[in-house]
This record gives sequence, structure tokens and C-alpha cells, in this order.
Amino acid sequence: MVLYFVGLGLADEKDITVRGLEAVRKCKRVYLEAYTSILLVPKKQLEAFYGRDVIIADREMVETAADDILADANHVDVAFLVVGDPFGATTHTDLQLRAHALGIETKVIHNASIMNAVGCCGLQLYRFGEAVSIVFFTDEWRPDSFYDRILANRQQGLHTLCLLDIKVKEPSMESLARGKPVYQPPRYMTVNQAVEQLLEIEEHRQQNAYGPDTFCVGLSRVGADSQQMQAGPMRDLLHAELGAPLHSFVIVGQMHPIEAEMMESLTSKISMSPESSSHA
Amino acid sequence: MVLYFVGLGLADEKDITVRGLEAVRKCKRVYLEAYTSILLVPKKQLEAFYGRDVIIADREMVETAADDILADANHVDVAFLVVGDPFGATTHTDLQLRAHALGIETKVIHNASIMNAVGCCGLQLYRFGEAVSIVFFTDEWRPDSFYDRILANRQQGLHTLCLLDIKVKEPSMESLARGKPVYQPPRYMTVNQAVEQLLEIEEHRQQNAYGPDTFCVGLSRVGADSQQMQAGPMRDLLHAELGAPLHSFVIVGQMHPIEAEMMESLTSKISMSPESSSHA
Repeated sequence: MVLYFVGLGLADEKDITVRGLEAVRKCKRVYLEAYTSILLVPKKQLEAFYGRDVIIADREMVETAADDILADANHVDVAFLVVGDPFGATTHTDLQLRAHALGIETKVIHNASIMNAVGCCGLQLYRFGEAVSIVFFTDEWRPDSFYDRILANRQQGLHTLCLLDIKVKEPSMESLARGKPVYQPPRYMTVNQAVEQLLEIEEHRQQNAYGPDTFCVGLSRVGADSQQMQAGPMRDLLHAELGAPLHSFVIVGQMHPIEAEMMESLTSKISMSPESSSHA
Repeated sequence: MVLYFVGLGLADEKDITVRGLEAVRKCKRVYLEAYTSILLVPKKQLEAFYGRDVIIADREMVETAADDILADANHVDVAFLVVGDPFGATTHTDLQLRAHALGIETKVIHNASIMNAVGCCGLQLYRFGEAVSIVFFTDEWRPDSFYDRILANRQQGLHTLCLLDIKVKEPSMESLARGKPVYQPPRYMTVNQAVEQLLEIEEHRQQNAYGPDTFCVGLSRVGADSQQMQAGPMRDLLHAELGAPLHSFVIVGQMHPIEAEMMESLTSKISMSPESSSHA
């Protein structure tokens, strides 16, 4: 029948759209893509709300067992749930193309993703340049290829959204060497870690893409009631306390006056939730 | 109590999130921002679904009568509905700051906007540079300041989302001259018109930001069942038939192989709706 790609939005089970909820409730099998982002609520809470069992689809499953996901999807409706928008930071074009090759109809139900919800900090979306992904440094691997993209954005006065790494169900290197994967506990990069890595990269590259004085915004749990934001020079955000995951980070470019006004309101407090903030 | 900024998503009344619907249903007054984008369904249909009267807020009202919108919002809940995301292409930071100044709590309920939903065409969102707005040319006013931004994106191999002008409740110049505004019928820029203007600008500027051979994607009614997409060289899109508004346009940069594969599937047909397409 139909393979639905359903965006879940950012925070909890009620961020699904009415159209999305109707689709999920008529599906025979429901998968939740769980390796590029997470909701802030446990799976059980989703299942209770949908009235459906939810199968966690990790990266391995989507890449190697796509046939299982698509099995019978020409006879029954199947939902593939994605935190944020189905075509947000990571696309699921591959699964979509595979479905089409099997003659399975697909439908996309959009939702908010960090790529557009970041506008909540008051910076205008059309003033963002290319987004970058910042991955966890390891002892051996300290990738900085995104540095040039930040530099290009900065030279044009544009803001840069930094998507921060998450590691879910990652096998340890040692266990892979032994041929039997043992999974590490999930890790989510904080704004503090991102800033630390960014400053280390600038020290090596020395092209002044940014520095400790560069104005930035740290965001956490965007879209949730517990959302927090803090703006200030990068050095201050090295120690910002933004609480539980997920975190996001923006390197600010040139600001219009109204952007600057919003930024000021975010620097005047340690944290601020526009979702539940009273400004007397 | 609370001023809610509620994103409605892109197509119809069911694109609101469950969280958003719950908020709207408990609000005393409900405004619909109706000058930067439109839903594809009439106001009556929204009102029936919400169980609430909906007051159309045009640009004039939001700019000059913000106090009416905010009246009593420290005693009753008020909703300000925005097609797409509240902080999509246009921000409503001004209204938010005004509410805060009056001590009114605000909450933001996010949704999909064209800024992230455009990912449905298969181009990866993080490969988009700065977005541009293309406004209707008039005899006297043929703005092309966005040309430099397209050029910068192209030089970096990035895609450019072009937001196409809409004119809703615009007074005619003659009527303004007479001091009594007479409003023109609404107009929505088509992909054809956008391409025509873009090619005219390139002829003047001659810096090869793009040209008739540049690969592009035209999209219409993104998120709706009737969604259409067509990819091809700009000259082909001059005559593409993409139907009713709203239209969007992407000037494609360098493509990754999987992006190219999706683009190919969009060139092989006059129009294609991934929302309801069966690919046997």
C-alpha cells in the first residue's frame, strides 16, 4: 500500500502532526529511525500514544535490512518515523528510492526539524549559510573539514548552524577488532564539547574563521518546554550549562538590529526558555 | 496567560501538530497571519477543525494593531497561527518582543516550513547556502540584490532556495496616490515568472551566476497530495506547468551521486508527486 515517512518534530509524542498521527494509526508496522536524532521521551510513551508497537530501526537495520522494512509494503501500510523532518539533516532518500524500485508508493509527512526550528533564537533563517556537522574527536581522528565552510559563511556575514554529533549503538573499536560488536552507551555532544573542539581547530588552522570572542548561541532541547538558549562570546559558552541533550550550536554572523535585540535578551540570563518564559 | 505562536505546516488543517491543536482549542482569540504564505484550504475549513473563529491578520494589522492582538493576553490565551513554522522565512520576533515587554508569556509550537520541507526533492538541506527572496518586478522596480548571494552559493557549489513573492491585500499604487487604498487581487509568483526574472537579471549582470543551462528544480504545493516537482535546465522550467500556488524554486549546485539520482527521477516526467506516486 504505502510507505509513510513521518516526521515526529523535536520534543515529544504530541509534536507529530494530526495528518501524521492518522497515518501511523493505520499502519501495520511502525519503525522509528533512532540513529541521527532522538525524541526526549521513551519509546513506550510513543507506543501508548500511537496505539502501535514501535520497532527501533538503528543504522545497521536501515542499511542492511531495508528489505525487512519494505516487506509486504505493497500489501500493508508501513510507517518509518523520523525525529524532526524525514528530509532534515539526514535524508532517507536511499530507502525512498528502494521503495520506488519495488513499486511501493511513498508519502512524506513533514514536520519541524532543527534546520528550521533554530529560527526560535531570533536569527533569521535566510541569513544562515551552509550547515555543518561536528563529530566527536577521537585520539586518532580529529576531522576539521567543515572549518572551510564556517570560514566561507563568516566571510559572507552568514550564521552557521552546527549539528552536534550523537553516537547511538556505536560498537567500540576494540570489540570490532575482536569481531564481535559490543555497543557503547549513547553519547550526545554538548555545546561545551563543540566549542572546545572548534577552538582547537582554529588554533591549528589559524585563518580566523572565528575565535574565543566570536558571538555564538548554544541551544538545548529546542521545541521542548525545557528548551534553553544562551548567547555570548564562544569562550563563555565553553562553560555554559545547558542541561540534558540534544544540544545545537550557532556561530553568529553579521546581525540585523532586530536579531541583535533578540541576542541581547539571550545573553542577559544564564538560560532562557521562550517556551515558558515570562518577561515582566 | 500565554501568546502561542503556532506553526500550521504547509498544506491543510491537518498539518498542525497535536500539541498545536490542543493549544489552539484552548485559546480565546485565534489570529492567522496571512501575508507571507497561505495554506491550500479556506479559512472556514480551519475554523471547523479548530472549533474556533479565526481572525485574518494582514500585514497592516500585525504592524499597526499589534496591541489589539496582545490585548488581554495576560488574562486569556491567544494564538497567532503562522503557515509553515513561526520562525520560518519571516520571523515574528517583533511581536514576540512586544509581548515580552508587556509581561506576556509566549510559547512557540514549531512545524515544517519550506525552509526544511524543500528537502523532499532529494537535495540535502545542509548543502543549501543562503536562501533568497524573489519579488515581483514592476516597471519601475526590478530588484536584483539577491544575485550576489546566488553567485556566492554557486561558487561554493551550494544549492539556493528561492522563495517566490506573494502579494496579498496589496493596495494599488494609484489608489495610494489618491489616499484611499484599493486592494488588488492576490498574486503568487510562479516558477515560470521566477525563471523569467532570473534570466533577465543574468543578462544584465553577466557574471555567470547561472544561465539557461543551469540545472534547477521547480516545486509546487510542497507537502500536499497534489505536490509537483520538475527538474531540468532553467530554460525548460520557463514553461513548466506546475499548477496552482504556492511555487518554490531551487537553483541546484554541485550534486552528490544520490542527489543526482533523485534529480534524474524528477526530470523524467513532466511532474511528479512523491506524496502519491507509484513507481512500478
